[in-house]
Amino acid sequence: MHFFNKQAIESLDPEDIQKAVAHAYNLVLDNDFHMPDRMHVPRGENTLLLMPCFAGDYFATKLVSVFPGAAASGLPVVNGIVMLADNHTGAPLAIMDGAALTARRTGAVGGLAVACLTPENICTAGIIGAGVQGLSQAQFLLYNRKITTLWVADLHQEAARAMVKTLQTTHPRVSFQVAETARDLVDACQVVICATTSTQPVFEAAPAEVKGKTFISIGSFTPKMKELPDAVITAADAVYVDTPFAAQESGDICIPLKNQVVSRNKIQPFAQLVRHPVDTEGDKTWFFKSVGMALFDLTVASAVYRLGKEKNLGQVLDV
Amino acid sequence: MHFFNKQAIESLDPEDIQKAVAHAYNLVLDNDFHMPDRMHVPRGENTLLLMPCFAGDYFATKLVSVFPGAAASGLPVVNGIVMLADNHTGAPLAIMDGAALTARRTGAVGGLAVACLTPENICTAGIIGAGVQGLSQAQFLLYNRKITTLWVADLHQEAARAMVKTLQTTHPRVSFQVAETARDLVDACQVVICATTSTQPVFEAAPAEVKGKTFISIGSFTPKMKELPDAVITAADAVYVDTPFAAQESGDICIPLKNQVVSRNKIQPFAQLVRHPVDTEGDKTWFFKSVGMALFDLTVASAVYRLGKEKNLGQVLDV
Repeated sequence: MHFFNKQAIESLDPEDIQKAVAHAYNLVLDNDFHMPDRMHVPRGENTLLLMPCFAGDYFATKLVSVFPGAAASGLPVVNGIVMLADNHTGAPLAIMDGAALTARRTGAVGGLAVACLTPENICTAGIIGAGVQGLSQAQFLLYNRKITTLWVADLHQEAARAMVKTLQTTHPRVSFQVAETARDLVDACQVVICATTSTQPVFEAAPAEVKGKTFISIGSFTPKMKELPDAVITAADAVYVDTPFAAQESGDICIPLKNQVVSRNKIQPFAQLVRHPVDTEGDKTWFFKSVGMALFDLTVASAVYRLGKEKNLGQVLDV
Repeated sequence: MHFFNKQAIESLDPEDIQKAVAHAYNLVLDNDFHMPDRMHVPRGENTLLLMPCFAGDYFATKLVSVFPGAAASGLPVVNGIVMLADNHTGAPLAIMDGAALTARRTGAVGGLAVACLTPENICTAGIIGAGVQGLSQAQFLLYNRKITTLWVADLHQEAARAMVKTLQTTHPRVSFQVAETARDLVDACQVVICATTSTQPVFEAAPAEVKGKTFISIGSFTPKMKELPDAVITAADAVYVDTPFAAQESGDICIPLKNQVVSRNKIQPFAQLVRHPVDTEGDKTWFFKSVGMALFDLTVASAVYRLGKEKNLGQVLDV
């Protein structure tokens, strides 16, 4: 049995992680997986999530805890592990840092959306929300497109500055800018990735003002969270979701649906783009919403296990 | 974060493990824990169980897989891990071998029943079922009572002989005997521990023939599994269960209840014995039925973590 820590998970190529995410979408298209509803254990203000999934040679269970009070002590709010096991024998194969794996696979989910829903030659991009997820989104964005200027916005400008500093070391040729406001960022960028847990849209705009851009929302995962104004879903030529649950679970989709701002048939599964790409050249507006699923964790964990062993990453557990 | 393997878990004193199980019963009496219903994921003939539990400074989740087909390749049917985490911050503290922890805590559940439900001076005892659980039951039995002759019965006498050989090395002064039949074993012993998954009683007897003995059933965990004949529950002066679920989950209780062989008010919680012991001297008949619960895993995992760190056991994970 192997243990893969944050460093091991982060050292793998974005290409390999993104391929693993694409593989998950292929399994969705083939309906070749088993993903029971996640188990949700509330305990006061804390939550434990148990997310099992089975596909092919592996099964994985992600255990994630969310302890909001930990932030006050400067500790991570989200913790967890992923256990990967052999789907033929049941034998445990690996334990992985759940937070690092989640950040990485969510980055790749955003990255694949960038690859499928932006013109190849875009050069300006923005990240709203400079947390762990925002950083991972930026890394996969920069892997997918030759961005010359990347804007970062956060309610706490310090956080945005810290993220810019981190990115600058790995991407010295990109110009990184901290935006005064999220709206400034949107105006300056061809693709905008939101990674916040905001319950109010992080900017206001009319539909005409967001036309021709690509919006990727990664943050909102409850019906009360909504990162983007209705203008985006209204202006969008097409709306894609990573799972059908996104339409129920994320306020960015369920609120406009409820208010009849958008019709249900405008919302389509992203998976189809993996086999039938759309033409992104021209002045179209795209909106992708992800809430994530255990299948992504499974395929990415499988890739970490296979490649990690090949590259001698991780720690061998003395079973 | 620490990893505790089978060897580390098995090296801890039975006393400490049994104290941790007694602590679980104290938490039950004080209603000072949170144990959601386990999540049960069937997948063909295989099963994945997810068992979270919270109490005091810790929470734990046990992931157990049951892959019956693995036996054909000589591999373990039951695999799993336990993750222990900090109940104040959510931080993962340790990963443990779930099969070893389960065997050990189940041994201690049986051991505590021996301590509470047999006269101190008993010297003959029997184990029916020479699997992993049977071995652990024997170890805790021998820790609790000065047994001079221990009988082992199994449908496969080879398994019984192998278990005897293992026990002989650690307990050279005890006389170990392989019984021809389970009934022979019962006749010869003052306490009988059953650790099988039989769907038919492993022996037949009239109530008068089992009087004055203590029966501990560890094996049956579904309504179709029944290790003991009705004679035992009929003859018993009292019937104790480790959890209220035992009455629904185990055929050893639910079948006699359904057939009105026993009345519901004869079935009592074992937890009460931890604070209010019964007098076991004299010629009484006792029956204890365990189906286990995640709370045992939690308190035993906490003990493994605390003591394991003190004794420098286990492997430090490079997080």
